[in-house]
Amino acid sequence: MSSEPMPAIILVEPQMGENIGATARAMLNFGLTDLRLVSPRDGWPNERAVAMASRADIVLENTRVFETTAEAIADLNHVFATTARTRDVIKKIATPRAAAAELRAHAVAGSQTGILFGKESVGLSREDVTLADSIISVPLNPDFSSINLAQAVLLVAYEWFQTGDATPPVQVHNEERPANKAELSHLFDRIERELDARGYFDPIMQRKHVILQNMRNMFQRLGLMESDVRAFQGIIKGLTMKLKDKNNDRDTP
Amino acid sequence: MSSEPMPAIILVEPQMGENIGATARAMLNFGLTDLRLVSPRDGWPNERAVAMASRADIVLENTRVFETTAEAIADLNHVFATTARTRDVIKKIATPRAAAAELRAHAVAGSQTGILFGKESVGLSREDVTLADSIISVPLNPDFSSINLAQAVLLVAYEWFQTGDATPPVQVHNEERPANKAELSHLFDRIERELDARGYFDPIMQRKHVILQNMRNMFQRLGLMESDVRAFQGIIKGLTMKLKDKNNDRDTP
Repeated sequence: MSSEPMPAIILVEPQMGENIGATARAMLNFGLTDLRLVSPRDGWPNERAVAMASRADIVLENTRVFETTAEAIADLNHVFATTARTRDVIKKIATPRAAAAELRAHAVAGSQTGILFGKESVGLSREDVTLADSIISVPLNPDFSSINLAQAVLLVAYEWFQTGDATPPVQVHNEERPANKAELSHLFDRIERELDARGYFDPIMQRKHVILQNMRNMFQRLGLMESDVRAFQGIIKGLTMKLKDKNNDRDTP
Repeated sequence: MSSEPMPAIILVEPQMGENIGATARAMLNFGLTDLRLVSPRDGWPNERAVAMASRADIVLENTRVFETTAEAIADLNHVFATTARTRDVIKKIATPRAAAAELRAHAVAGSQTGILFGKESVGLSREDVTLADSIISVPLNPDFSSINLAQAVLLVAYEWFQTGDATPPVQVHNEERPANKAELSHLFDRIERELDARGYFDPIMQRKHVILQNMRNMFQRLGLMESDVRAFQGIIKGLTMKLKDKNNDRDTP
């Protein structure tokens, strides 16, 4: 996968150095290192960007600066524009997840891609959006939609990373072995035997079958480990012991 | 869906008010409003949290503070612990995406859930992780894994929101109608006719069929709008006109 090109992140007219640094960190958390700036307000290099980037400053060392968006994307085959304003837009609008799938497909095919992000306060201009092939719009709470530049980069970079990450959705680290059906049966049987021996079911004999069935279902559902079964066996053993004699601290006969 | 409980976000020993405020913003962007704090370092309320939260301060107004993690999660049925340290952990480890699916399932079933996030520098203690049912671990670049508290909340809240959001993965806003097959055929036929009339294929007659087939495939693939076909028709018309007479600016006979 290292031979696949990675998407470039292009910040158009970024205002604050801290946001550029934060963008670098957001990118590197998800393996992206191609950062491009178009007319950064405070020029380049930028001390505040370096300070904020901290250990992600490797991204800043390779950052390229351009005067226009067109120049920044000249070598790219497919460009997404990230914007919240999608009215009157004729282009295709994708969620970050759908866009990431397309970005990965382009990368696998060897095509260079890029994602535009606009100025902190106002986003991308209509002209910049026109330069892109498609739009990314992040689904947000319609009553409160306020993510900042680095957060937008983070979410898109996160979705990109998931398309290539092999982490299983769920991992179970069992240091122990789940109890097998014989061990569970043995446990159920013992409980039934001890309850029978104490006449537990005598007043409710017509419900004994259902009660025992529910109990077996419950134990199945709990997903007990082998050590859990042994623990329950210990509890049953303890509960079925005779009470201690309070007077002389010896078992009553 | 408004009757479904939403996951609570629990910050354990948050250090900086700004991070609490940033957490509130991250939450509200994705419709979460139940924020709980366990022993915040600087007490509560916290001016810096309010300042950072800005228009998300509605989340802070309802924030509850607890002395212990156990108290903060007492009413919850299923708790996830977000942590990067997953060695020696016996619990199930889920990606944010898988955890979000489970959180939504619990919500639909009416169960209260919550997600623990630890102290900024060191994360959750082993004791706090033990209180949880499962773990969330965010897949990150193994060479640079450094997301801050609010970013971790953002990613988990984002995944939660996607499980309930109806935004289609891709939307196409065509103000125009895609060209239909008859219009495309008409265009291909015209091109073929004009090329034939000019003897274009004469030197390469054995390849004419393949060339025309490739041309038709290309026009199919371009996904032309009805107006695009009309534009091409205009180009063809223009290219097949006679040259202007340079001497007297009239068509040569």
